[in-house]
Amino acid sequence: MKKPLILVTNDDGITAPGLRSLIRYMKEIGDVVVVAPDSPQSGKGHAITVDETLFSAKLVVDKEKGAPLEYSCSGTPADCVKLALQELLDRRPDICVSGINHGSNASINVIYSGTMSAAIEAGIEGIPAIGFSLCDYAWEADFSAAEEAIKTIVKKALKYGIPEDVVLNVNIPKASKEDIKGIKICRQARANWKEKFDKRTSPSGRDYYWLTGEFELLDKGEDTDEWALAHNYISVVPTQFDLTAHHAIQGLNSWEL
Amino acid sequence: MKKPLILVTNDDGITAPGLRSLIRYMKEIGDVVVVAPDSPQSGKGHAITVDETLFSAKLVVDKEKGAPLEYSCSGTPADCVKLALQELLDRRPDICVSGINHGSNASINVIYSGTMSAAIEAGIEGIPAIGFSLCDYAWEADFSAAEEAIKTIVKKALKYGIPEDVVLNVNIPKASKEDIKGIKICRQARANWKEKFDKRTSPSGRDYYWLTGEFELLDKGEDTDEWALAHNYISVVPTQFDLTAHHAIQGLNSWEL
Repeated sequence: MKKPLILVTNDDGITAPGLRSLIRYMKEIGDVVVVAPDSPQSGKGHAITVDETLFSAKLVVDKEKGAPLEYSCSGTPADCVKLALQELLDRRPDICVSGINHGSNASINVIYSGTMSAAIEAGIEGIPAIGFSLCDYAWEADFSAAEEAIKTIVKKALKYGIPEDVVLNVNIPKASKEDIKGIKICRQARANWKEKFDKRTSPSGRDYYWLTGEFELLDKGEDTDEWALAHNYISVVPTQFDLTAHHAIQGLNSWEL
Repeated sequence: MKKPLILVTNDDGITAPGLRSLIRYMKEIGDVVVVAPDSPQSGKGHAITVDETLFSAKLVVDKEKGAPLEYSCSGTPADCVKLALQELLDRRPDICVSGINHGSNASINVIYSGTMSAAIEAGIEGIPAIGFSLCDYAWEADFSAAEEAIKTIVKKALKYGIPEDVVLNVNIPKASKEDIKGIKICRQARANWKEKFDKRTSPSGRDYYWLTGEFELLDKGEDTDEWALAHNYISVVPTQFDLTAHHAIQGLNSWEL
């Protein structure tokens, strides 16, 4: 039987430990091709590169035997997926996995997430896709606690398929393997960021800002990704790119525009 | 009665004719403050600037009497809204309008749209928000055909409010005022882009790519934004930032993860 082809990408860049871990796990499941940004792309949302050139290079990162084919790309995570599908892969991947992100993409973070934009781009192209994120921003974060769960989710997705026009947003709590209680299918929690801008003055006298902020959970539901993560469950949110607020259509029709 | 405060932004940059038109229309409705990118930000999706500095400058673009307060910002459209709300405005705006974009943000384009990311960012902050786009990519596009419709939509939004967690994605067909048939509340059409990469070689021998593509409509529904636009209606899609595919939760639970 032919092994499944797995496209692996991320937003933290091709050398990120989270990506290197995901590649190792995926090599046990299928043939892996990596197309990932040549530099960190966190917070890039669903950006694509228009009216600028894109560069791509074939790289050898792992020297060991059986190391996968890897390409870096100068663009965003969404660009990586587009370039992989149209130019770099010689057959259509059976699944696209993105991550493992260094930091949470749960709740409203999905909107800003480069990791998830890569998965969503693959989903738009009709390819089953999953974004994985660990709720630990450290570069030296320990990804191993979630290894078995990640492999299980990918194998189930290959076996059962992911519903059309849906991609999975998987977030992993920062916890030891023993402390992780299981996997929960969830909805996206309602939340936002209370921004604060740290205003400073440059040596030449020009004002500038650093964006900072505090996460604000606005949702007490026990069926949300934030609830699951706070209780040491891995959260899986089915995520869609039809943004229509269908429930609002009737009310807007009463505006008599 | 106090006039409503209207925050105006866009993704084509502070000098774009679409923004200048929108400012003129909004001045008839309320007090306008402009916070817009200092350079074009098309295709930036919901990118935000993290781990980089942001600059902002108070500008005078229109010299006429009653010209609004304007600020440029070195960041993305979403950054502009965050900076406006936290730093630049002295009161909370009653509405945020983004655009008028030079080019369509209907159907799947909403995912890549900087114009809509600004509106969505305002929506996340609880401010009624609308993105406006004209289906004409030309810099010298004629925005006047939609002037009355844009003012009507903003006035109705101020009067009735926009449902919580919903923002409006308004697209305007490229047509004369006489040919525009009206305004339709729609859902986002199912569509994607068939990408093609134009591969070239630089003078120094390095390969690079230009992203090009053809729009592919996958939806025959007559309740979609693409149908409305093709029939010379202005489309209004209520758009949400809860990306949960609620219909997929039950099926995923049968995976027994």
